[in-house]
Amino acid sequence: MVALKTNSQRMRKFSLSLLLLSPALAFGQDLVQYVKPIIGTAKMGHTYPGATVPFGMVQLSPETDTIPYEMNGRYNPDVYKYCAGYQYTDKTIVGFSHTHFSGTGHSDLGDFLIMPTTGPLQLNPGTADHPENGYRSRFSHENETAEAAYYKVKLDDHNILAELTATNRVGFHQYTFPEAGNAHIILDLMAGIYNYGNKNVWTFVRIENDSLITGYRQTAGWARTRTVYFAMTFSKPFTKYGHQNYANDVYKGFWRKFDQTENFPEMAGRQIRAWFDFNTRPGEKIQVKFALSPVSTAGALNNLRTEAPDWDFDAVKKKGQADWNKELAKIRVNALSNDDMVNFYTAMYHTFLGPTTYMDVDGGYRGLDQLNHSAEGFTNYTTFSLWDTYRALHPFFNIIQPQRNADMVRSMLEHYNQSVHKMLPVWSHYANENWCMIGYHSVSVIADAIMKGNINGYDANKALDACATTARYRKYDGLGYYMDMGYVPEDKNSSSVSKTLEYAYDDWCIAQVAKKLGRNDLYEEFIKRSQNYRNVFDPSTGFMRPKLSDGTFRKEFDVLSTHGQGYIEGNAWNYSLYVPQYPAEMIAMMGGKKQFTGHLDSLFTMHLPDAFFAETEDITREGIIGNYVHGNEPAHHAAYLYNWTDAPWKTQERVRMILEKMYKPAADGLGGNDDCGQMSAWYIFTTLGFYPVCPGSTEYALGSPAIRSAELHLENGKTFSVEAVNQGAKNVYVKKVELNGKPLTGRFLTHADIMNGGKIVFYMDRKPKK
Amino acid sequence: MVALKTNSQRMRKFSLSLLLLSPALAFGQDLVQYVKPIIGTAKMGHTYPGATVPFGMVQLSPETDTIPYEMNGRYNPDVYKYCAGYQYTDKTIVGFSHTHFSGTGHSDLGDFLIMPTTGPLQLNPGTADHPENGYRSRFSHENETAEAAYYKVKLDDHNILAELTATNRVGFHQYTFPEAGNAHIILDLMAGIYNYGNKNVWTFVRIENDSLITGYRQTAGWARTRTVYFAMTFSKPFTKYGHQNYANDVYKGFWRKFDQTENFPEMAGRQIRAWFDFNTRPGEKIQVKFALSPVSTAGALNNLRTEAPDWDFDAVKKKGQADWNKELAKIRVNALSNDDMVNFYTAMYHTFLGPTTYMDVDGGYRGLDQLNHSAEGFTNYTTFSLWDTYRALHPFFNIIQPQRNADMVRSMLEHYNQSVHKMLPVWSHYANENWCMIGYHSVSVIADAIMKGNINGYDANKALDACATTARYRKYDGLGYYMDMGYVPEDKNSSSVSKTLEYAYDDWCIAQVAKKLGRNDLYEEFIKRSQNYRNVFDPSTGFMRPKLSDGTFRKEFDVLSTHGQGYIEGNAWNYSLYVPQYPAEMIAMMGGKKQFTGHLDSLFTMHLPDAFFAETEDITREGIIGNYVHGNEPAHHAAYLYNWTDAPWKTQERVRMILEKMYKPAADGLGGNDDCGQMSAWYIFTTLGFYPVCPGSTEYALGSPAIRSAELHLENGKTFSVEAVNQGAKNVYVKKVELNGKPLTGRFLTHADIMNGGKIVFYMDRKPKK
Repeated sequence: MVALKTNSQRMRKFSLSLLLLSPALAFGQDLVQYVKPIIGTAKMGHTYPGATVPFGMVQLSPETDTIPYEMNGRYNPDVYKYCAGYQYTDKTIVGFSHTHFSGTGHSDLGDFLIMPTTGPLQLNPGTADHPENGYRSRFSHENETAEAAYYKVKLDDHNILAELTATNRVGFHQYTFPEAGNAHIILDLMAGIYNYGNKNVWTFVRIENDSLITGYRQTAGWARTRTVYFAMTFSKPFTKYGHQNYANDVYKGFWRKFDQTENFPEMAGRQIRAWFDFNTRPGEKIQVKFALSPVSTAGALNNLRTEAPDWDFDAVKKKGQADWNKELAKIRVNALSNDDMVNFYTAMYHTFLGPTTYMDVDGGYRGLDQLNHSAEGFTNYTTFSLWDTYRALHPFFNIIQPQRNADMVRSMLEHYNQSVHKMLPVWSHYANENWCMIGYHSVSVIADAIMKGNINGYDANKALDACATTARYRKYDGLGYYMDMGYVPEDKNSSSVSKTLEYAYDDWCIAQVAKKLGRNDLYEEFIKRSQNYRNVFDPSTGFMRPKLSDGTFRKEFDVLSTHGQGYIEGNAWNYSLYVPQYPAEMIAMMGGKKQFTGHLDSLFTMHLPDAFFAETEDITREGIIGNYVHGNEPAHHAAYLYNWTDAPWKTQERVRMILEKMYKPAADGLGGNDDCGQMSAWYIFTTLGFYPVCPGSTEYALGSPAIRSAELHLENGKTFSVEAVNQGAKNVYVKKVELNGKPLTGRFLTHADIMNGGKIVFYMDRKPKK
Repeated sequence: MVALKTNSQRMRKFSLSLLLLSPALAFGQDLVQYVKPIIGTAKMGHTYPGATVPFGMVQLSPETDTIPYEMNGRYNPDVYKYCAGYQYTDKTIVGFSHTHFSGTGHSDLGDFLIMPTTGPLQLNPGTADHPENGYRSRFSHENETAEAAYYKVKLDDHNILAELTATNRVGFHQYTFPEAGNAHIILDLMAGIYNYGNKNVWTFVRIENDSLITGYRQTAGWARTRTVYFAMTFSKPFTKYGHQNYANDVYKGFWRKFDQTENFPEMAGRQIRAWFDFNTRPGEKIQVKFALSPVSTAGALNNLRTEAPDWDFDAVKKKGQADWNKELAKIRVNALSNDDMVNFYTAMYHTFLGPTTYMDVDGGYRGLDQLNHSAEGFTNYTTFSLWDTYRALHPFFNIIQPQRNADMVRSMLEHYNQSVHKMLPVWSHYANENWCMIGYHSVSVIADAIMKGNINGYDANKALDACATTARYRKYDGLGYYMDMGYVPEDKNSSSVSKTLEYAYDDWCIAQVAKKLGRNDLYEEFIKRSQNYRNVFDPSTGFMRPKLSDGTFRKEFDVLSTHGQGYIEGNAWNYSLYVPQYPAEMIAMMGGKKQFTGHLDSLFTMHLPDAFFAETEDITREGIIGNYVHGNEPAHHAAYLYNWTDAPWKTQERVRMILEKMYKPAADGLGGNDDCGQMSAWYIFTTLGFYPVCPGSTEYALGSPAIRSAELHLENGKTFSVEAVNQGAKNVYVKKVELNGKPLTGRFLTHADIMNGGKIVFYMDRKPKK
């Protein structure tokens, strides 16, 4: 979602500062300058502005509010705004916590909120309207800097400058205090994102000595059984400390012997806020290092001592930004403008935020079976938003982060091994399956990796078995019906059309791997299932349509609405295009190329009534073009479908329009949830001129590159270059394409073309080649 | 507490069956026949009748009720009755759970309640008055058998015969069903002893396959942060299974996709009851093996497979009883009657119930720091009821279980190493300090072991340091005041006299070790503190008396009451005798031998008003003799104090009277809480004719043996024999004593006398030797 408010002074200032940058610098070392973590922090982007390193376990970022799930017993719709804890238009900061999702449409985390304060100790957070009644503080964007691996803000109410940086597993805080006889650092263990009911299951804290604290937080939220351990150390001993326990339903027993509220070194309970006091000189910096572990406090302490042994904030920041530069430099791009440079490298940044590292420096991690495991020979990752990221993020990784992607596959296979359901992850985070959204798109990620030869560190045959077993788990989301009837009947299981279509695509992925590995029985089983999309196509309307268990289509049918119509996060217009495995067959089924071209044109140009937006979750007018919804994923491939018609120039036109409308270098610059990098991965692919319409195939559909040139520096040592000759904002049409000096006559590029190194040249034109 | 109801038919039956036993058998192999776990299960004994092996991790025993801590918002005094889950006079059994304290006066545990049922599935427990409304069942003692390592009962409402046995870490159930198309086995994870508020923190269950279940239960009760893991397996696959989740305050998220109530293999939440269904033939036995672990479900599974690999219930029972015979045979006794044989070996049984094993078969255990540790070269134990057990139980272990006692010391030292407070255990269980009662009596246990040369497996100097550091933890229970002022002032900290006296004794223990190890600085520090008992002695009343911080004695003073008078679980009469380290000095301070003898006589003969019992916790008329309270611990040494006067024959008379009045072979046969074996250890010492008045010294005060003869088979291969010549129920007085054929002229026996092997002969007489 975009809604650029360039008329506001704030936004203007922000844009002005961008103009000072030179595109030429992109070829120098400092690509971090183009990363603006603030992008997507307004409205629905759901990104966070704080400090993190590539694929880092710690995401140390400010919370501008911590909204409870319910207010006065009713669902509070504002919780959705705070998936990442930060909303750009808010005026106060509650504190800085250590775990955040990037761009999700559902929420959790926000672990271990730290807030430095001055004045009388206040242990409640206060309100946005009356921050003075609690520990939170006003702030302004003038005094705020968000960079890759660095965040800085002035906390006006406390006259404290807060700076944050991070290593993979350690958040590093630096607070510059005024003179204060009574400076406080609060550790709020009650705070958290999406505090539904009794989300806090248990928290435990030990004051190990005058500057080291360990403990853990266990929650039952989106992740049902989740524990995060920590070790926290101060650069200076505290003068005293204490805590309040706000839960009264826990037996206190003989702990009553002690005054536990002050200088008592062991705290445990459901609702705890701790505080640490310091005397400070004017301008004195107090630093906090805060390490996480999925395993134990000892693991956190080992992470702390290994990754951040010293008290050199600037060195950690420098190292973090160097790490970012290294990752960003995997693609060197010459964009059309500074804004585009910012869009591109911020998109790169967003794609490299996750999946996140989920193991200690010694390889230990908590498994789905709640047991401790050791990752031997791979990095274990978590936070798999697979319904989103199988589309473009993991294919992007197969080009630019192949070893990490192979490790992500390995992590998914370990999840499978630990699963009592014997399922690969659906949407998993922190040793939990949260079952969010639909499909079993792990199989797409695995197929894409195997088909592209990215099989380092795992057994492709075992991976195939895991895919097949997952796809046969009858209890899952209508899958039993699908297996028996060839579709999910809407009267038995909702969102039945979306499920049927996505299962059929996933089944095709399994079939491809089975074919490649010579597993004919599996190939036959799943290639047959891949045809099931046909079972929900209604020739009388030309749309995919919910079918009942008696074999008839449901009578009520609204092709615009997303509610109760057989779809999820998409309507019939968008979802009916979802047969990525067989675009040509789908087009034939829908009346042939000509009729389909007109149908697609309608999608991009029709006008939707306001009522549509009022009732539709996750979609706003800013996130759509006509009825094409870019702010959500189901139709992300749609603009590329013109490639299978006689009008590929319409793909070129549409994708450039989407790039322009949906991505802006501003806080509200994302046209919808970034969804753990999927929106950004779409941007990168499309900007480079090609897109993986069907992950699991080795083909990329060509589009219209939006840069002058780019170099992809591959892990295999080769370089693949993209050049756009005669490029310009209006030269969106491709006249001809050459690969390694030879004409590329088709509309596709193969994975091998890229990985072998070489150069693709697009000759751009202002007019379409019809 | 005794209150023998021999007029009731039930009790008569029980006594009759005992008469059939022959004392001669005591010298055969089967000592288990004398163990009656039912002893102490009525009234205040707080023992449990179920199956366990010596020092076993699993205590598999029936619950006759699970009383919530509060009823209608108010404290429910009945919770106290159910410390061990079972009350003999109850008519129904709720189920069989796997963890129980033996004889405590406070409660926790009751983990993993299993109940087999027939008929329609009922997941609520029902009530004692209406068991038919729930899964519980009526039963009768006619159909109940309680042996060491074996328990059997007929569940009348379900027509099921339930049998229980155990290995160290595995509970083994055998249920004989009638023909039932729909037999159930319920696993109630909500059930538990002392369910205060939200005691259940989290429970987690995985159905690994058609007969294996794993999971854990995390509670916040007496132990604040406690988790027990399990692995459970059935001898026959279930036909279906399911669960109900009774907590509605947990976010359900996308788990709603599934019907989790039936055949869904993953359960998690705060309030869960699971069920498993079976088809049964008439008389079909379904067995359940249920393993525990303090570390993980994998640990539990490994314990299960290591300790109980087969499905041979009888073999496990036989092995368990053989283990008991082996331990019981460490003392071979020829008692005066069958009743005394039962009393003696049941006392042995009770002393060997704990501390309990707290580590997996591979040595892994959870530490006080909530980290997993490995016990290298020792067995890690938990459940240290030290205010009770330092008196006689651990001294008894130093004779008859020295290696286990050394391992218990080692376990306490590991607790210290893991403690953020740097304190040895006060009252600890399951990786938690619960801080129950007063003093720091770990130091007594450690001093007793070191002074008696039982130092295998730990460093005595480090142990001494741990003792000294513990004794200097100023935050603890008035200890700062004590260190500064030489006493605990009652206006600053309650039960101040009891604390002052016990600290002074503990300090003496530290001084003894310091002296032995040549640590003069520590000796000086603590021998000085050991004199602090003098600071609370009031010569004007002749009693120890609460003193205020201004140095004056508190004006209000009631020498009978235990409430608010400066004492805990004892009154001035009993507690004023508590200077075990300096009996002679105490007697001099109290007016000399003659006056003290009269004072002691008064204690044993005075009549207390009924009002005393109405207001006094933990003491009933059955548990006292005069004003001497045997049902609680503070005066357990008192009857032996006549040894320091000119009337040692009064010790002989009193202790025989106490043995007779306070110990009976009946359900209500214990004169108070058995307190993890302390009451029973008192019985054993006293029956053998000597008692450790001051643990930490190597002397035992002689009393009056109550057996004809006994042989103590020591771990060092030697045998120490006790013989009572001219023994008889009325021949309670000792005319002379010979040790190894030579007259023993003093009133004491040394530890070396025992451990060197040999023989002590008491020549008994009907008349006192004045």
